[in-house]
Amino acid sequence: MTHEAGIPLGIRFKLLSDTPQDSAAQVVGDVVIGDYRDLDTLREFARGCDVITFDHEHVPTEHLRALEADGIPVRPGPDALVHAQDKGVMRARLDAIGVPCPRHRIVADPQDVAAFAAEGEGFPVVLKTVRGGYDGKGVWVVDSVEEAAEPFKAGVPVLAEEKVDYVRELAANVVRSPHGQAVAYPVVESRQVGGVCDTVIAPAPGLDDALALKAEQMALSIAKELGVVGHLAVELFQTRDGRILVNELAMRPHNSGHWSQDGAITSQFANHVRAVLDLPLGDPRPRAKWTVMVNVLGGDYPDMYSAYLHCMARDPQLKIHMYGKDVKPGRKVGHVNTYGDDLDDVLERARHAAGYLRGTITE
Amino acid sequence: MTHEAGIPLGIRFKLLSDTPQDSAAQVVGDVVIGDYRDLDTLREFARGCDVITFDHEHVPTEHLRALEADGIPVRPGPDALVHAQDKGVMRARLDAIGVPCPRHRIVADPQDVAAFAAEGEGFPVVLKTVRGGYDGKGVWVVDSVEEAAEPFKAGVPVLAEEKVDYVRELAANVVRSPHGQAVAYPVVESRQVGGVCDTVIAPAPGLDDALALKAEQMALSIAKELGVVGHLAVELFQTRDGRILVNELAMRPHNSGHWSQDGAITSQFANHVRAVLDLPLGDPRPRAKWTVMVNVLGGDYPDMYSAYLHCMARDPQLKIHMYGKDVKPGRKVGHVNTYGDDLDDVLERARHAAGYLRGTITE
Repeated sequence: MTHEAGIPLGIRFKLLSDTPQDSAAQVVGDVVIGDYRDLDTLREFARGCDVITFDHEHVPTEHLRALEADGIPVRPGPDALVHAQDKGVMRARLDAIGVPCPRHRIVADPQDVAAFAAEGEGFPVVLKTVRGGYDGKGVWVVDSVEEAAEPFKAGVPVLAEEKVDYVRELAANVVRSPHGQAVAYPVVESRQVGGVCDTVIAPAPGLDDALALKAEQMALSIAKELGVVGHLAVELFQTRDGRILVNELAMRPHNSGHWSQDGAITSQFANHVRAVLDLPLGDPRPRAKWTVMVNVLGGDYPDMYSAYLHCMARDPQLKIHMYGKDVKPGRKVGHVNTYGDDLDDVLERARHAAGYLRGTITE
Repeated sequence: MTHEAGIPLGIRFKLLSDTPQDSAAQVVGDVVIGDYRDLDTLREFARGCDVITFDHEHVPTEHLRALEADGIPVRPGPDALVHAQDKGVMRARLDAIGVPCPRHRIVADPQDVAAFAAEGEGFPVVLKTVRGGYDGKGVWVVDSVEEAAEPFKAGVPVLAEEKVDYVRELAANVVRSPHGQAVAYPVVESRQVGGVCDTVIAPAPGLDDALALKAEQMALSIAKELGVVGHLAVELFQTRDGRILVNELAMRPHNSGHWSQDGAITSQFANHVRAVLDLPLGDPRPRAKWTVMVNVLGGDYPDMYSAYLHCMARDPQLKIHMYGKDVKPGRKVGHVNTYGDDLDDVLERARHAAGYLRGTITE
């Protein structure tokens, strides 16, 4: 989708991909198949690139430092990206700059988890490996010291966090350029199912203006303090007592910003490309009163193409974005966007299309 | 741009291109370099394609018939496409189905041009070679029998047409699927400079509703009668006495429809892809009150990229679409789209950006 956004600007991508089946490898012309964990591969790949960016955060921080030392601009740079790679580093830094987070600390073992629980409201406690998690993986909600054993098995440091009493999840998406120019998208509501993002509503319905502004300013401030270049998604909890706390950071175009492809004047992908190239940023404002994104998960039918007929005929305004991935049950294989003036209608259309594509709705 | 529109639907293109420098060859992964005039090349290329479509109309009609005979769906098919390839065939067919055209006939030599002139209002007369012309090439406006010699030198049949007294040019863009579903975009005004499209305004300002409807119906009727599949652009003259006459036909996404990328719910490229695959068509209605497209022609500066800085900073809502072509003076190398509620503002922004990118505006 970043490639798609680069085409109109004449920006040519060279892609380092694990396999030729990766979504991006199917549409980018210039593809190198290789392992992003191997420094020699990265160095060979980087030769001749004007700038390097990412569609995930898993490239080892030290390799990115090596590329920078070679003179290759890496955006976001390793000193920023580490905050999206390591939840321990992220929490420590957000504490230092005064950004509100759930109560948290690194824990040494299950007994330490029990101590952490006792320091606050008790169990349940949320445990996260500091590196390697996404979409609910690497995250556990534990109710006892016995249940707290599992997260320590990977040998990765474990972060304990209070289980926040939240009314909903929000996301504040901002984009920042090396010049320091930054834009903020409207704060969205993000609804998860089974730890995986299901629905995003832009803007977040009924969100108090002051709280929306606070969330946008918090995201802009994090982007600035951490030296982010490109897209930053700040996932937030809106608590029952009216606070907003930072849940996670992502430094790349993010699922909570996919609505912007059809709902904003400038999409998150276009603005990420512009930021990475230090071009002036585009207007992030919405084009419709409401835009809804619903993820399409793989279902029981491997062929989603035949579902296009019904979905497109039912809703000529529907926007389908499929990733060319093999369909596996529960895997994110695409998303749909709808927009309009009536939120109920916009939600129904997006849910119906996503459900029909997955096969859970058959009419 | 058709590839760009196919990506979100997971539609993969295989491209037959003259050279690796062609715009599409720079962004499509699967490219075959070859000559579209060679049947063996076409047959080899077509193997494994589900359907074939075009971004120009120059593939020989008889080769397309051969591919169809091989069982490869060609959309639009040769029996439709010939009307966009051969102006003589087009005029004869439009006459037969009662579509109003400028007065015209095939002429044999300069003396016959003089006779054609004498049958109507006299000189000037418009002469066109029936095949091979575009963007003003293959078209002459002649004032005398002496000037009428040039068009015959190519040895291609020559069509004579009255020089229409028009107040402006319009274009009616429609898309039709094999199922027979069809959608009509709002009729646009198209302004030419030196025979080349310069500015398109959607919808055409001040166009009488009845005349707009007539133009849309005319285009839908031509698409149906000629069996067009995919995008059909009908270029029209609006005459001083209030008629509309067909100037040219194009059977592919067309310059007069580029505004739809940012100004319509579904772009002409997305609808062309959907039609060619016999998927239900998307909503062609505008998203903004006014959308303006201005072509970017090559100027004296080969580097247009550095102009992005000023253009993007000046207008964060600007949409730039560059084709990756080498800059040559006067060559179409891209276009810009702007939209909004105030036509004067929207026009000014598009003109400024296109002029700045070309180098004719420097502030």
